[in-house]
Amino acid sequence: MAKATKQPSKIAAERKPAPTKRSASAKVSAQEHTGAEDDVNITALDLASGKLSPEMDAYFKKCDEKLGFVPNVLKAFAFDNAKLEAFVAYRQQLVQNAETLSKLEIEMIATAVSSQNRCFYCITAHGNGVRALGTPVLGEMMVQNYRAARLSKRQRPMLDFAVKLTLTPWEIEEADRETLRRSGFTDRDIWDIASVAAFYNMTNRLASATDMRPNSVYHGQAR
Amino acid sequence: MAKATKQPSKIAAERKPAPTKRSASAKVSAQEHTGAEDDVNITALDLASGKLSPEMDAYFKKCDEKLGFVPNVLKAFAFDNAKLEAFVAYRQQLVQNAETLSKLEIEMIATAVSSQNRCFYCITAHGNGVRALGTPVLGEMMVQNYRAARLSKRQRPMLDFAVKLTLTPWEIEEADRETLRRSGFTDRDIWDIASVAAFYNMTNRLASATDMRPNSVYHGQAR
Amino acid sequence: MAKATKQPSKIAAERKPAPTKRSASAKVSAQEHTGAEDDVNITALDLASGKLSPEMDAYFKKCDEKLGFVPNVLKAFAFDNAKLEAFVAYRQQLVQNAETLSKLEIEMIATAVSSQNRCFYCITAHGNGVRALGTPVLGEMMVQNYRAARLSKRQRPMLDFAVKLTLTPWEIEEADRETLRRSGFTDRDIWDIASVAAFYNMTNRLASATDMRPNSVYHGQAR
Amino acid sequence: MAKATKQPSKIAAERKPAPTKRSASAKVSAQEHTGAEDDVNITALDLASGKLSPEMDAYFKKCDEKLGFVPNVLKAFAFDNAKLEAFVAYRQQLVQNAETLSKLEIEMIATAVSSQNRCFYCITAHGNGVRALGTPVLGEMMVQNYRAARLSKRQRPMLDFAVKLTLTPWEIEEADRETLRRSGFTDRDIWDIASVAAFYNMTNRLASATDMRPNSVYHGQAR
Amino acid sequence: MAKATKQPSKIAAERKPAPTKRSASAKVSAQEHTGAEDDVNITALDLASGKLSPEMDAYFKKCDEKLGFVPNVLKAFAFDNAKLEAFVAYRQQLVQNAETLSKLEIEMIATAVSSQNRCFYCITAHGNGVRALGTPVLGEMMVQNYRAARLSKRQRPMLDFAVKLTLTPWEIEEADRETLRRSGFTDRDIWDIASVAAFYNMTNRLASATDMRPNSVYHGQAR
Amino acid sequence: MAKATKQPSKIAAERKPAPTKRSASAKVSAQEHTGAEDDVNITALDLASGKLSPEMDAYFKKCDEKLGFVPNVLKAFAFDNAKLEAFVAYRQQLVQNAETLSKLEIEMIATAVSSQNRCFYCITAHGNGVRALGTPVLGEMMVQNYRAARLSKRQRPMLDFAVKLTLTPWEIEEADRETLRRSGFTDRDIWDIASVAAFYNMTNRLASATDMRPNSVYHGQAR
Repeated sequence: MAKATKQPSKIAAERKPAPTKRSASAKVSAQEHTGAEDDVNITALDLASGKLSPEMDAYFKKCDEKLGFVPNVLKAFAFDNAKLEAFVAYRQQLVQNAETLSKLEIEMIATAVSSQNRCFYCITAHGNGVRALGTPVLGEMMVQNYRAARLSKRQRPMLDFAVKLTLTPWEIEEADRETLRRSGFTDRDIWDIASVAAFYNMTNRLASATDMRPNSVYHGQAR
Repeated sequence: MAKATKQPSKIAAERKPAPTKRSASAKVSAQEHTGAEDDVNITALDLASGKLSPEMDAYFKKCDEKLGFVPNVLKAFAFDNAKLEAFVAYRQQLVQNAETLSKLEIEMIATAVSSQNRCFYCITAHGNGVRALGTPVLGEMMVQNYRAARLSKRQRPMLDFAVKLTLTPWEIEEADRETLRRSGFTDRDIWDIASVAAFYNMTNRLASATDMRPNSVYHGQAR
Repeated sequence: MAKATKQPSKIAAERKPAPTKRSASAKVSAQEHTGAEDDVNITALDLASGKLSPEMDAYFKKCDEKLGFVPNVLKAFAFDNAKLEAFVAYRQQLVQNAETLSKLEIEMIATAVSSQNRCFYCITAHGNGVRALGTPVLGEMMVQNYRAARLSKRQRPMLDFAVKLTLTPWEIEEADRETLRRSGFTDRDIWDIASVAAFYNMTNRLASATDMRPNSVYHGQAR
Repeated sequence: MAKATKQPSKIAAERKPAPTKRSASAKVSAQEHTGAEDDVNITALDLASGKLSPEMDAYFKKCDEKLGFVPNVLKAFAFDNAKLEAFVAYRQQLVQNAETLSKLEIEMIATAVSSQNRCFYCITAHGNGVRALGTPVLGEMMVQNYRAARLSKRQRPMLDFAVKLTLTPWEIEEADRETLRRSGFTDRDIWDIASVAAFYNMTNRLASATDMRPNSVYHGQAR
Repeated sequence: MAKATKQPSKIAAERKPAPTKRSASAKVSAQEHTGAEDDVNITALDLASGKLSPEMDAYFKKCDEKLGFVPNVLKAFAFDNAKLEAFVAYRQQLVQNAETLSKLEIEMIATAVSSQNRCFYCITAHGNGVRALGTPVLGEMMVQNYRAARLSKRQRPMLDFAVKLTLTPWEIEEADRETLRRSGFTDRDIWDIASVAAFYNMTNRLASATDMRPNSVYHGQAR
Repeated sequence: MAKATKQPSKIAAERKPAPTKRSASAKVSAQEHTGAEDDVNITALDLASGKLSPEMDAYFKKCDEKLGFVPNVLKAFAFDNAKLEAFVAYRQQLVQNAETLSKLEIEMIATAVSSQNRCFYCITAHGNGVRALGTPVLGEMMVQNYRAARLSKRQRPMLDFAVKLTLTPWEIEEADRETLRRSGFTDRDIWDIASVAAFYNMTNRLASATDMRPNSVYHGQAR
């Protein structure tokens, strides 16, 4: 199947985790945007390759086995193994260990937040997550305008909170938390929603600052 | 192939061009967003079916033959055949009859403009256009953040102009037109770029005002 | 009466429908802004004159008879007779054929929308419309801040919808349509309000992109 | 001449300087916006009439003789003679006593600033000033979008500075002052431009906060 | 105590009221920001010293006695004694002579408004006022985000009105005034709140336009 | 010294790391904002106390020894020891381990970013950092408007990048990175600046979402 050609060579990809700065002559005609370059030149920064710890090396291998590739954000961090480990651990604790939020709900928040910040890397990676865990149409709605989705009485206020927290955090007040509580969320859930939304406000900016590129394989998945 | 099931029944679709108002109980769980309802309840307005002229009937049939479906925007206009005809003619003259803009460039402008206005209908339909005429990755970039694409010296100022015209039209001045001229565009091209960008600023708002839904088949195409 | 001198020579005006690009040395001292140049150099684009069809020629003559001039927007489109015809037909169907909106209400929407987009051409032409069909004061309010007018329970939500659709179309939701319905509007009226507001969001951008200038005669009318 | 009927009765107007709160049933049909009420109920606040000092009484009389009416802003301040005197003196010193700015230039700044703040009172009063001292067309441009005017190399940067100071004062830096200096302005002129722009940012807000209404006679003048 | 060294020499300060333009080589390393220069070079404008009237000379002396310094805003105006007198009188009448607003409430409005406009001079001077009249913590909240303070049912709507009037004055309507009335404010109070908020919108812009610097002594006071 | 009374009791503070939800009757008169409550009720969420690991317990003790208190952000995370550890490690790696950015520069970025997001917790904590490592005046400038500071050719573009990344991350492009490189920053520095700015965009939102309150002792320090 043609799409297989978009997938980066697994072996090459995992052996060279650190990005090399992309060439200056990167402008291409519209028809040439195959995404292939995005799998090689991951960020706009020229950072020398670091050495992965055995744990991180194993983690990259596990990604490759499960997903067929190592997400570029991990490779981008790999110039410094200590930063990579801290990032992976933080994401585990502050995003993935939410108490009642489902994996799909986490991906919905990640995508809706990233859409507000127009982050190419994160919209691509997490839009894919919503498509895979929810439906392809729901993924597109989270990317384009989450208000277009007909959401449950739990998920709409959850996203309203996450998006307001993204756009005008200084306007979040007790009334906003009360809306979440009335929608069935506990105070721990409020922490988790905030924590996920805040995390992607961070990665959106790290990705935009470095022109981080998503693995091209994401684009065709779960369509 | 599984995606075929997303495609609306052609026969049913073309026989009933006018939308019926969607049911109030439209909220569904996230996993149920299949897009199927979008093919039946096209807008939030309850407008009685109008009768198509022979010309428009033929045009719908031709769409169905070429695309496999009638775009929902046409069905949405079909409650009044005279409006439908005016829309089709206007789009033909003001969007499709551009002098040197390629079909792909027109779709790129349409998608980048619609992304600024976060219009679910138009991003979906024209993002598909960019994917089909350009590449899947280019389509995603136009949807998410056109600045992520490595564009030619012609296409980047073209999109910069279209997006500025969308966001702060009152700030467009001679210097903006001069930038286009220096990028190789004629005055006729400037008209065409403006005309296409202005047209989608119109349809974005008509679609948002009526909650117009894109044909679900778009989502899976040209991925 | 002195103001008569502002009116463009009818005969010259209608014989040369297509604009010629304005001279580069167009900057003048503040006291010299008579608007006279705006009747000659209609846009910033240098587009060769097109030939009008007999129908459009007759339409221009009819404008001249009824208004005393041909609106510059029509002359701006006249470089291409097919585009001109499509524009006139579209405006007829999507703006003028509203079901219950009065001519004044259409002009109110046009002016309030154009004011948000700060479009010199459209505010001038449609502010004049509001002054003529309503009152001079109402015209000024639509130009400056529609909230200053003491509007009926029908017209205020109508303008609120049109202005929200102009500024943040992605935030229009069912609640906005329900507000219109509760104010006595039918679903067909919602279409019409949206259609008029969307149309002027288009012309505002076409006028701003080309620096289209209003006929100077508008400024002094219906004061 | 018909417009004379719009002019408030001079005698009644000057005898009752203090506004009385407008009636709650103020909503009228669009055709009834004659502005007549604006000459009677000047603000939305119910403030008891104050007694004018002989100096202010004489000033009101002088306004009436020169203009044919007392500007409503003065009547609005008249509930407290000390505030009125301070306002008149401050305006004299900080606006009218500019060193090289012409009266027209002051009115241009006042109108362009008030247009950004969409202040019905100030746009009306100062738009009239630009029409009277400059041209009717220039007045309309200042109201609608000052960028539409073809301004001299002195007046365009003057307005750019005033408008930037209005919208994003925190972004004004030495480079902005240098642009004014290179355009021929002295440091004293920079003070004056800033002082005028700042003054109208104040009156715009005082007028908006109290729903201050302009004398209806302004609308028809200098057209 | 070390902080005493920050205080400008009283004698030098009051003898030279007019600012001299600051040197071009003003960029310093971060550790050198002692504020000392701010006490000498008060604005970015080079305006020749004016002569103070006996009344203003006495007023400066009184400031120096009470505060230990002459506020730089007064020195900045002192290039023209007539402007200075008008400013002092206007501030007395329109800010300080509020009917029921306490001195602290006036400082709270001044600081919250100045924070929206990010004005270094006014936030510094009035943040100090809130700290001195209220508490140090309240001062910090007004500077940073007034919503962080737990305010009384009187003070929160007062600040909401002042901040909305600052950011979107065109959206202030009768409903906003009604909210103040329901919170116990009279129409005269509404005038006063508006007058104070409007005044600081003026001084914020005058200070930003001229890069006016606050007396360094403010920073350490009432902490 | 009076300020000592503001400092929370160390012993009580460190024994109860987890916040308890603040009482509903939290509104106080302006004079009562002593900040004392902020040291007890740290966030608006009611999250049960967690047990600290020996490492985190030691870390809290070390904070208390060095600073005289445990920063409230750490106590806020302490409901879940694993999250706390991840946060501390991430901050260590992504913020504190910058290669060439000085501690002061990191605090400057943190404060300027937090000021854009109007975050009470972070402006307070990091404004203190700038005051302590730089000067009191520099701290105030970072809080109020970083453009007011006369910064070196290294620090101004550093903050411009961090603030643009905060406000419009989607507009960061290669030209922005080139500006940093021309200002002497390496690609590794660009990563570090982005990483610090991104981190505080995260904590700003976590703090705003939970109404996290800064230790009151910060307010009076390094003044």
